[in-house]
Amino acid sequence: MATAKGYAAPAAGAPLAPFTFERRDPNPDDVVISIKYCGVCHSDIHMVDNGWGQSVYPIVPGHEVAGVVTAVGSNVTKFKEGDHVGVGCFVDSCVTCKAARDLDREQYQPGLVLTYSGFEPGSDTPTYGGYSDHMVVKEDYVLSIPEHLPLDAAAPLLCAGITLYSPLRHWNAGPGKKVAILGMGGLGHMGVKLAHAMGAEVTVLSQTLSKQADGLKLGASHYYATNDPKTFETLANTFDLIICTVSAPLDWGAYLALLKVDGTMVLVGAPEEPAQLNAFALIPGRRTLAGSMIGSIKETQEMLDFCGEKNIVADIEVIAIDQINAAYQRMHKSDVRYRFVIDMGTL
Amino acid sequence: MATAKGYAAPAAGAPLAPFTFERRDPNPDDVVISIKYCGVCHSDIHMVDNGWGQSVYPIVPGHEVAGVVTAVGSNVTKFKEGDHVGVGCFVDSCVTCKAARDLDREQYQPGLVLTYSGFEPGSDTPTYGGYSDHMVVKEDYVLSIPEHLPLDAAAPLLCAGITLYSPLRHWNAGPGKKVAILGMGGLGHMGVKLAHAMGAEVTVLSQTLSKQADGLKLGASHYYATNDPKTFETLANTFDLIICTVSAPLDWGAYLALLKVDGTMVLVGAPEEPAQLNAFALIPGRRTLAGSMIGSIKETQEMLDFCGEKNIVADIEVIAIDQINAAYQRMHKSDVRYRFVIDMGTL
Repeated sequence: MATAKGYAAPAAGAPLAPFTFERRDPNPDDVVISIKYCGVCHSDIHMVDNGWGQSVYPIVPGHEVAGVVTAVGSNVTKFKEGDHVGVGCFVDSCVTCKAARDLDREQYQPGLVLTYSGFEPGSDTPTYGGYSDHMVVKEDYVLSIPEHLPLDAAAPLLCAGITLYSPLRHWNAGPGKKVAILGMGGLGHMGVKLAHAMGAEVTVLSQTLSKQADGLKLGASHYYATNDPKTFETLANTFDLIICTVSAPLDWGAYLALLKVDGTMVLVGAPEEPAQLNAFALIPGRRTLAGSMIGSIKETQEMLDFCGEKNIVADIEVIAIDQINAAYQRMHKSDVRYRFVIDMGTL
Repeated sequence: MATAKGYAAPAAGAPLAPFTFERRDPNPDDVVISIKYCGVCHSDIHMVDNGWGQSVYPIVPGHEVAGVVTAVGSNVTKFKEGDHVGVGCFVDSCVTCKAARDLDREQYQPGLVLTYSGFEPGSDTPTYGGYSDHMVVKEDYVLSIPEHLPLDAAAPLLCAGITLYSPLRHWNAGPGKKVAILGMGGLGHMGVKLAHAMGAEVTVLSQTLSKQADGLKLGASHYYATNDPKTFETLANTFDLIICTVSAPLDWGAYLALLKVDGTMVLVGAPEEPAQLNAFALIPGRRTLAGSMIGSIKETQEMLDFCGEKNIVADIEVIAIDQINAAYQRMHKSDVRYRFVIDMGTL
């Protein structure tokens, strides 16, 4: 066992504070990672607040982990000391899930072990996330980060990046497709970059035009304010695909009307409350409303390789670990362009 | 102009009564059809009641038309006197829609001319439906009914049949697929027959088990009552595809939970009121909720040919035209197995 330092919330909604805990010694199939940076995801706040009712305390958040390999177990073949690696939202899965891995949709299996606030397989030891100095993770759940990408700005790819990449690929974003990214935050700004790099014609739908210059710079061809009713007239029947990154309550029907026949709107942001939906928003255009959640390990690696090839990383604001509670406050006000990343050297 | 006899509702919600009106003389591309039978669709009641706010009065309902050709225009090549033919939900479309016909999704174009309660293209002459003695319809919107199918039981294929066939095909119902048909009425019983004939493993989800024997006879392998909470435990994560034929308000989330990862629930029944939907019903399994509406002319012909090959027709109760108001009352109580068809010889 090795002592790890990190930051944890001791109870629901409590501020994060320094926390010391144990990490296991590496098994033969484990990789030991010195964490250099960890992105701050909205899920971290939800989980700290127990917004989804599944949190385990004390909770060390963080599932956008970027670091460097410091040791590997005897059976590890894919990684060696010094490699740049990442860890995303899960670090293990049950046997059933492993059987399903070739389906490339491991992320939807019930037996996933979450990177934090889960339990180590077959034990009551909680998992602790990336707001810490090091991690010990099975080789199969470690991702390779292209060496030329900066580790700080690459960290958010492990959740924000794959959360957008997966539905864009699954619903065939690419040349000739009109894709709208709904919401211009941590998720949305990644969606603009990725959809543009895939060759789609990208439109941002944001509450106001305050981030228009950024959106166009990141690859959007069009930018509309959703607080302007004219937007909904102008864009009726326009898009093949809308990715909704907004987790506030929304009139989904108004956005479904912006889809072409056979268009799809994919929810990756989840309001806590149910929304109203009229069947007529779907039936007359054979439209679909779908959901999508992160991606498989295989797809996450594919995304990282794609980002390496296209030089895509997140737009970030680097903070020290003792600024994390203030950062959460700012995130509640959407006051970040576009992702906080913790410099773990400050721990 | 030729005088036509039919039954019409003179105003919203008024009983249907005998009505005399004019049909156009056939143009060179028209087919004149002597109507033998007309199915009674739930839409007829909605339209008579102006439930969707688009009805034109007096309204002659009927879009499940089966009859025999009595004359053809000089340019007509596909039909001749004596042919068994059908007419479904639309009888013309605008130029834009025609351009889109090769997409095989003409039914979703805005310029459709509805078989009744629409307007003849470029005029203010209303269209009158199949509760009448004859129709004059453009060749391109006339369907061929296989000669060996009985015309009375074939009539409901023109709406109920295609409404189920189209989503079953579009979402790949077939061997190896588990398909649930939600609702065992006029639409649902066609869904059971068609999905079974396509090779899928069919489950009926009905409020009670009262129609279980029928469901199994029509091709279902399993039959569950949705008023039994155990059904939702037993069938969690089971289906590739659920076709929802229910137009009463429903907890969609409870049914979405019965889908496998990547499963789809398709709404073909439309409650008038919006329903509540939680994003978490879609996100964790990449599930989709979609809508579907009738089918294109091309697909409707494909469906009729398929039904001819598989000897599929509707289970019907034949009525005289003067029983139509009583039939509507019985339909409000779901008291029909499974489709009323009007014998137009009784007009």
